[in-house]
Amino acid sequence: MKFTTYLRNQTPRLAVVDGDQLIDLHDADPQVPPDLRAALEAGVDLAAAARQAIGGSSARMPLARVKLAPLVPEPGKIVCLGLNYFDHAKEGGRDKPEYPWFFFRGASSLIAHGDAGVVPRVSSRFDYEAELALVIGRRVPRHTRRADALPYVFGYSCFNDMSVRDYQKRTPQWTIGKNFDATGGFGPVLVSADELPEGAKGLRIQGRLNGQVMQDADTSDMIFDVAETIELLADVLTLEPGDVIVMGTPAGVGQARTPPVWMKPGDRFEVEIDRIGTLVNPIEAEQS
Amino acid sequence: MKFTTYLRNQTPRLAVVDGDQLIDLHDADPQVPPDLRAALEAGVDLAAAARQAIGGSSARMPLARVKLAPLVPEPGKIVCLGLNYFDHAKEGGRDKPEYPWFFFRGASSLIAHGDAGVVPRVSSRFDYEAELALVIGRRVPRHTRRADALPYVFGYSCFNDMSVRDYQKRTPQWTIGKNFDATGGFGPVLVSADELPEGAKGLRIQGRLNGQVMQDADTSDMIFDVAETIELLADVLTLEPGDVIVMGTPAGVGQARTPPVWMKPGDRFEVEIDRIGTLVNPIEAEQS
Repeated sequence: MKFTTYLRNQTPRLAVVDGDQLIDLHDADPQVPPDLRAALEAGVDLAAAARQAIGGSSARMPLARVKLAPLVPEPGKIVCLGLNYFDHAKEGGRDKPEYPWFFFRGASSLIAHGDAGVVPRVSSRFDYEAELALVIGRRVPRHTRRADALPYVFGYSCFNDMSVRDYQKRTPQWTIGKNFDATGGFGPVLVSADELPEGAKGLRIQGRLNGQVMQDADTSDMIFDVAETIELLADVLTLEPGDVIVMGTPAGVGQARTPPVWMKPGDRFEVEIDRIGTLVNPIEAEQS
Repeated sequence: MKFTTYLRNQTPRLAVVDGDQLIDLHDADPQVPPDLRAALEAGVDLAAAARQAIGGSSARMPLARVKLAPLVPEPGKIVCLGLNYFDHAKEGGRDKPEYPWFFFRGASSLIAHGDAGVVPRVSSRFDYEAELALVIGRRVPRHTRRADALPYVFGYSCFNDMSVRDYQKRTPQWTIGKNFDATGGFGPVLVSADELPEGAKGLRIQGRLNGQVMQDADTSDMIFDVAETIELLADVLTLEPGDVIVMGTPAGVGQARTPPVWMKPGDRFEVEIDRIGTLVNPIEAEQS
């Protein structure tokens, strides 16, 4: 099942995607909260709600005609992994890490499919990172082991972890370079875990700048896979419904090229993951 | 004016503090949302609401009898600064930074005044950090300059940025060691900015472990003060009502001592800031 979040009167609303159409789930069943995180927190059976909506008589909207929002507009946490593909660690001159390089994004950095990624006024070193993202469906008990981890994943999507490289490296803490407004592309759809291979493994992931393939890898090449990442996080904190984990990027980023490639206004970046979808973000300058 | 957030039927509720009593602001005026972040987002004049509540006939509860919650239970962002007192940077063998070492906390790490800070099962290197915290009152326009920054601060409080040092240093990214469940003490009260010196400067800040003074400094010794920190963040992102900034810790942390001092179950840590209050957290072991 595929889900998305779209904007109606400036408010994010959860919908199920059926072919090239979507159906608002709260319209179809007023007991389903209109927000994905709230629906997951309430323990709603979204697969059942989606099936019912698709079989029912609710209004359908062409996907191409709606304005999308980030899939989870206000996640409790957005946990990101750095250097999680060996080839990418290597292109940055790093060894394979023995523990994930975790950092957090804030919700204020998120944008939807179709929204512009914004080159900030203070930097032109604006880079792309094609990534697999997942959304937690149920509260993960502390110390959950990897063998038990995957049932807590509700679904998977695409993410563009756009990075302002000079700010990322002003200190050893990458966080600030990963939290500029309008730099976290997230969407267009969330594919429920049951429709994908276990842990979303074996999926081709591509990053394309203006149609040219810049990153091309397989999600099986991640150093820390989804199940192990959840295990490591569960040693530390409570993953809650609607939390997002962004799984890191493969080789081919702009900063590692000679000469470096930076995204600039007028560009367009796509993150495509096999069987999940294609996230497209045009690139614009910050409005002054 | 002093505000706090307490629990009624497991739900956080905003209150004004009058002496050793508190008054629920939503009870006093149903137009005031019961959540501090929501009230700030709605642009409620909380000073006026507080004055009215204090002058009115609403029920008063003894502060000592209620269970508090983190002051902002679900901030959009919790931005923390590392190494923001020169003496602390120095005790860690670091130079004075030229840019703040920003990292983020998630809301799931927050605890209230009186709640236990939890020594995690996976580590015993559990350290304290007494800090000044602030809450943003109004959306800060991008590129706000330091001279214009302080009116966006709603108020100040105490924070204990408890740190799991081995996890903090497993990779160069500190984030994971700063995000264990039940490690971010935040409270007990929020003092509105108008009651304090500009930028909360010139206040004595102390951290005490079992009554013994471990940290003792003046908030004027911060390398990046509140106004400059807001300016630097406004270059990057949008600070929103209810966002929290945690301003870094002075010298005296446990890891820099010989031998190192780690907090253990049965301990009690206090963060006292002159004219703001004293945050007390007992320390407990993680339940197995």
